[in-house]
Amino acid sequence: MENLLIPSPQGTTRVFVVLGDPVAQVKAPELMNRVFVANGVDAVMVPVHVHPCELPTVMPGLKQIANLDGMLITIPHKFDVCAHIDTASEMVSLSGAANALRREIDGSWSGENFDGLGFVAGLMQQGHDPAGKIVTLVGSGGAGVAIAAALLQAGVQRLNVTDLSKEKASRLAQRLNARYNGRVDASVTPQLQDADIVINSTPMGLRETDPLPFDVDRLHNETLVADIIMKPAQTRLLKHAAQRGLRVHQGIHMLAPQIEMYREYFRVPFVGEHSVGENPRY
Amino acid sequence: MENLLIPSPQGTTRVFVVLGDPVAQVKAPELMNRVFVANGVDAVMVPVHVHPCELPTVMPGLKQIANLDGMLITIPHKFDVCAHIDTASEMVSLSGAANALRREIDGSWSGENFDGLGFVAGLMQQGHDPAGKIVTLVGSGGAGVAIAAALLQAGVQRLNVTDLSKEKASRLAQRLNARYNGRVDASVTPQLQDADIVINSTPMGLRETDPLPFDVDRLHNETLVADIIMKPAQTRLLKHAAQRGLRVHQGIHMLAPQIEMYREYFRVPFVGEHSVGENPRY
Repeated sequence: MENLLIPSPQGTTRVFVVLGDPVAQVKAPELMNRVFVANGVDAVMVPVHVHPCELPTVMPGLKQIANLDGMLITIPHKFDVCAHIDTASEMVSLSGAANALRREIDGSWSGENFDGLGFVAGLMQQGHDPAGKIVTLVGSGGAGVAIAAALLQAGVQRLNVTDLSKEKASRLAQRLNARYNGRVDASVTPQLQDADIVINSTPMGLRETDPLPFDVDRLHNETLVADIIMKPAQTRLLKHAAQRGLRVHQGIHMLAPQIEMYREYFRVPFVGEHSVGENPRY
Repeated sequence: MENLLIPSPQGTTRVFVVLGDPVAQVKAPELMNRVFVANGVDAVMVPVHVHPCELPTVMPGLKQIANLDGMLITIPHKFDVCAHIDTASEMVSLSGAANALRREIDGSWSGENFDGLGFVAGLMQQGHDPAGKIVTLVGSGGAGVAIAAALLQAGVQRLNVTDLSKEKASRLAQRLNARYNGRVDASVTPQLQDADIVINSTPMGLRETDPLPFDVDRLHNETLVADIIMKPAQTRLLKHAAQRGLRVHQGIHMLAPQIEMYREYFRVPFVGEHSVGENPRY
């Protein structure tokens, strides 16, 4: 990932942005620019730092830039950006959050959320089909809501969504139950005893000193413990679960499928890996 | 200029844009990205295509992007962009047009116009100090107005500004005379007989079949004939003038000083040319 060189943007270059606050930590520009270069596409992704109070001013401006074709959305804008989407996907409607927008042929903007789809794709790739399973999701934030919606779309039998804010979890459950009648319940304390899969989608685990997001000892022996935290790859939660002999699923698994989903969503024709020197632009 | 490779933008990268309609022809991204790379600055310039009717929506949005530090402005936005400048330079006030904006420490946006300053710097570099001279400027468009203002600032004795639209030339002369009392007059037909320097700032000459913007045969033998058209380097006008034995001044001379002015204006510390491999970012 280090030292990726790309052709300099020129007048003809199509522009993509990733919106966040802060934005210095985002990896999307390097990941997506690698995809553009590898597939010989004259496009570039740049970071766009937007304070929450400025989103209502910035979004209409970005939407009207004629050579801006797509946006990725990160913390804290995934919820508020929905007000600026002309056509929301089912995933966006269900989760109430979006992490990708694209310009359509007619100039309107569609919104999608790949956080949950990427998470489910990662589960499947690792051999953990969630269909028919009892799942507990700990944390109903920007990523959690999308994971909840994608799990239901993937056919989980029952989903317990939790959050320290009962109201937040209840609102999510209500929205999901309107589509997946009665399969979702909300609570502050996670239901652990009968869960087949338990997912941490809280930020707890980013720091080594964070408390565990839930009590691993209360899980049965067949439970899969998943984390969405990517750094560290093996969080304290996953270490504890592994020590107990439970199967674990790392946060990194949700990333690779999303890059491929973004490529498709942004209509980057897949050519395959080739070096910059072979780039058809040159 | 071909095949310039730059480090991929990352989360920390500062963003610069060049606004135009169309924008595919602009050379600014490659020129400025070369400056950023050469001086080891973590910044990138991308093209931004804005239709005139969308400028009032796009500009407030761009101004509120926290990691967007500067803009270059090209046709047709040089006049209308002035409404979005918080602090206009004297050059912008005089010419009524801007071609560069930058974010100040307090978050406000300043505007400057380097078209004329670049032109005058180019004249000086070629040994043609305009101070005290009688100058005729043919064409009062986006570049012409800035050249007129810069020539007065450089101390021309008399300036004849012309345009096919008498009103356009008169408006410009009025604005300039408010500052440079009586040194400017406006006309439709250029005053050629006593001119020391005659400048073409119309688009006539971009195509080989264009008529000459003014009659070279009516100039006296010491007149300098200047063109702001860069392609072709030697326009039909300049060829005719050279054939008549007159000194000529090519459009390209206004470009190099402007790149250096942009570097300073955008506060890119000058380190000097070094290759990407030595870039302090890496």
